[in-house]
Amino acid sequence: MAAPTKVNLEFPKLKNDLIIRAARGEKTERVPVWAMRQAGRYLPEFRELRAEHNFFKIVQTPPLACEITLQPIRRFQLDAAIIFCDILVINQALGMECVMVPGKGPTFPQPIAKPEDLKRLDKDVNVRDKLSYVFSAITLTRQELKGQVPLIGFAGAPWTLMAYSIEGGGSKTYSKSKKWLYTHVEASHQFLQILTDVIVPYLVCQVEAGAQLLQVFDSHAGILGKDLFCTFSLPYLKQIVTRVKDSLRSKSIKPVPMIVFAKDAHYGLEELNNSGYDVVGLDWTIQPQQARAVTSKVSLQGNLDPCAMYCNKDDLTSKVKQMLSQFGTQKYIANLGHGMYPDFPPESLETFVNAVHEISEKMNE
Amino acid sequence: MAAPTKVNLEFPKLKNDLIIRAARGEKTERVPVWAMRQAGRYLPEFRELRAEHNFFKIVQTPPLACEITLQPIRRFQLDAAIIFCDILVINQALGMECVMVPGKGPTFPQPIAKPEDLKRLDKDVNVRDKLSYVFSAITLTRQELKGQVPLIGFAGAPWTLMAYSIEGGGSKTYSKSKKWLYTHVEASHQFLQILTDVIVPYLVCQVEAGAQLLQVFDSHAGILGKDLFCTFSLPYLKQIVTRVKDSLRSKSIKPVPMIVFAKDAHYGLEELNNSGYDVVGLDWTIQPQQARAVTSKVSLQGNLDPCAMYCNKDDLTSKVKQMLSQFGTQKYIANLGHGMYPDFPPESLETFVNAVHEISEKMNE
Repeated sequence: MAAPTKVNLEFPKLKNDLIIRAARGEKTERVPVWAMRQAGRYLPEFRELRAEHNFFKIVQTPPLACEITLQPIRRFQLDAAIIFCDILVINQALGMECVMVPGKGPTFPQPIAKPEDLKRLDKDVNVRDKLSYVFSAITLTRQELKGQVPLIGFAGAPWTLMAYSIEGGGSKTYSKSKKWLYTHVEASHQFLQILTDVIVPYLVCQVEAGAQLLQVFDSHAGILGKDLFCTFSLPYLKQIVTRVKDSLRSKSIKPVPMIVFAKDAHYGLEELNNSGYDVVGLDWTIQPQQARAVTSKVSLQGNLDPCAMYCNKDDLTSKVKQMLSQFGTQKYIANLGHGMYPDFPPESLETFVNAVHEISEKMNE
Repeated sequence: MAAPTKVNLEFPKLKNDLIIRAARGEKTERVPVWAMRQAGRYLPEFRELRAEHNFFKIVQTPPLACEITLQPIRRFQLDAAIIFCDILVINQALGMECVMVPGKGPTFPQPIAKPEDLKRLDKDVNVRDKLSYVFSAITLTRQELKGQVPLIGFAGAPWTLMAYSIEGGGSKTYSKSKKWLYTHVEASHQFLQILTDVIVPYLVCQVEAGAQLLQVFDSHAGILGKDLFCTFSLPYLKQIVTRVKDSLRSKSIKPVPMIVFAKDAHYGLEELNNSGYDVVGLDWTIQPQQARAVTSKVSLQGNLDPCAMYCNKDDLTSKVKQMLSQFGTQKYIANLGHGMYPDFPPESLETFVNAVHEISEKMNE
């Protein structure tokens, strides 16, 4: 059991700290497992609640966000909950209006089109006030979890949030935001720093509110390639982990383990190993053994192809077995290589979770 | 100069065979260069012609396809032309209706939703007749090129065409088509074989019509990951190169060099090195030296980040210099890591092409 922190003392005692130990590289008797987007549309109870409330209404209403967060925990033997939220709340806090467009996802009607638009951002936002709904949701959920499993907090990475801000939504090529990196170098760094300066207190406040691990999602890292990643993403990812941990220490709070998930950044594993994060998340295109070979300092998280969730029980179980044999059972958190898709059968997540537990326990015997 | 083939004899003598020699691993005095989508919307003369005719009308009208193919050749010192066409003509030949939806790209109103839908495909299509417009366009263009540079023919890879057919268009996750790979294994192989059996004669006919190199685009390889790629893409890519070359030999035509471009398949470079293709194309996320280390059998093509085309002349030139120093000047065809985007300045392609020539010539001195 991890040593209790100042924050932990205010909450029910943690009964399952597997994921925290795995993240810290400590011995685990079985492999902890969770799934990105485990609280999501693939669950009928999520769709039911979502039919009544719009997406950001749920995010901004702590009892609703708590309820959604707990839904998969009630169904499956997951080893962690992750607070229901969206990475774009940072942009909203900076003053960007964000609307959920059906079939298209979150969209900024007024994207940051040119460097001058950065002036529109409320750089001096009081994060603790502006995003208090997230912290309230975390505190409530931590209470409601009753120590069953740890609660993960998260944020989008600066590059990913910058890309969304400029594109206005998703994109195939991210050419508008990459154009900034090539032609507005200084403004790009300014923007990334503005985002970083909001992300750091956001994550610190999440821990103060009760988050027991933190994950930073660099969902659009893959479009960058190594040179751009090392110039425009990695320095800010490092700044975040350093400043968040320093800030927690300065408040006499034991730093929580931090996970970085730079999707499709196959080219950057060595750099991520040296980034200061405790855990590196992997997408499914990365071979576990190759990742292990260059990431001795960190624990790994991942990375089953999410579409394997379409498999029947036997096939899915044998894929889990293969994944575990490739990663081994230590310094490892089982997960998918990306989030749950809306049409996945809920039973597949049950199969996945139970297979990770049963097979890894046997491997550890 | 490469030995003339039966086909070459019917056409104007080739004056620049740099790309053919580079593809075959023969010595080149300077690095040949072309750009994927070099005939495209970034050119005002393309947009002008495109405003008058719909996309597939141009593809199906040899003088128009020829004109579009020649447009970038008139402007830039490119070392190859690539016939203007679309990878989805294979699906059209199989009987699938395809429409160009503005802002969305080519779309199949009636996708292949379930295995039974494969019955709708016209497996016994006479490729030579059905796609005669492509072959006529190639022959005309080869004549009009007057031997200035070689003409590249191309096809989509079976997996990429299968993915498009099932999704009905583009997709973020390609989860519908990947679901087939996990749940309709036999039907997936059937579909891939149907596509392969059309692609092979399609490519052979392109060479007979005058194509001097061939490229196979596996644009959606990256979504697969290694296991699925090795099961559902690679075997068909290999079948294509083997059967096309055998078929050409059986017709006493010297096989042309073949390029495989499996975009984002960073996990499969060793397999592609052993696939039988002469050249492996690389996207921009792959480090040139790492690719060289595992691809001793093939020449490499690529791989500047396309968005570097937004750079000013000096920055772009120094990026070309870096690329050339990483790849070296031999067994190498310079290209972008993906196609030209519609908003690229045409002058950037000029800078790119001239920089490749000038810098590589100096390196070879």
